Amino acid sequence: MRSEFINPFLSATVDVFRTMLSCELKRGPLGLKRDNTQEFEVSGLIGLSGKCQGMVAFSLGRNTAIRAAEIMLGQCPDGLNADVIDAIGEITNMIAGGAKTLLTEYQLSIGLPTVICGSSHSIKFPSGSTPLVIPFDSEFGPICVEVGLVELPLS
Amino acid sequence: MRSEFINPFLSATVDVFRTMLSCELKRGPLGLKRDNTQEFEVSGLIGLSGKCQGMVAFSLGRNTAIRAAEIMLGQCPDGLNADVIDAIGEITNMIAGGAKTLLTEYQLSIGLPTVICGSSHSIKFPSGSTPLVIPFDSEFGPICVEVGLVELPLS
Repeated sequence: MRSEFINPFLSATVDVFRTMLSCELKRGPLGLKRDNTQEFEVSGLIGLSGKCQGMVAFSLGRNTAIRAAEIMLGQCPDGLNADVIDAIGEITNMIAGGAKTLLTEYQLSIGLPTVICGSSHSIKFPSGSTPLVIPFDSEFGPICVEVGLVELPLS
Repeated sequence: MRSEFINPFLSATVDVFRTMLSCELKRGPLGLKRDNTQEFEVSGLIGLSGKCQGMVAFSLGRNTAIRAAEIMLGQCPDGLNADVIDAIGEITNMIAGGAKTLLTEYQLSIGLPTVICGSSHSIKFPSGSTPLVIPFDSEFGPICVEVGLVELPLS
């Protein structure tokens, strides 16, 4: 994956957390996705297509997800319920949407977010896509954004 | 979700299994996604965008995934390894690609498939998308295709 793809996702994530959750993210070291990449219980996924194709995954722990949803909703959700799922889907959508506006030359359009819940799930990208992982720390707990994008051959 | 969206995914799944895996699928009853929808260990996801936006998830058990990969690869994989992940990603891609060619009026483009592994993961769609679930039976075991698509307002 081209490294210039990653900055738009990084800025979009920082912006979404700042504007929607009044939360300043502290960025950790960018890395390749590996088998030992930390796994989280909740992941929002959204597909991207256009002059490149890909998927973005935004992952966080159960309590971090509930805390983020509480701020968006203005009240504390009753566990990892449908409101939290919608909030995480919406944050994923905003991260992808923000990155899309910074990558106009790729004419990206974004899909519908889907949220995966499961204490032991892992997200695997196809072997050709070399996804990059951006870890962040926040006052709510660690979060992680993974981006796998493949440029299409010129037709 | 409009019900006419579902048939292209149904036919594409049957076609992919027939041509790639020489496997005839037996379709089960179409249903709405519910909290008690069966969960599987492996799910291939791919985003769709165009005049509608969405996500398709193709789910199956660990052994069914390994068996399907064995047929595609011509040799038995050593567990749920990177080859199986790639095979499931490829099947997901072919299902989405097949459905796309049957839904030309929506000018869909598809993203990059991602594969989720985890014995207790569940896939949640946003509350506005009413995803439909198509269960199938096969000689390898049950599989399931979930489709969540939302039509965009005319601009």
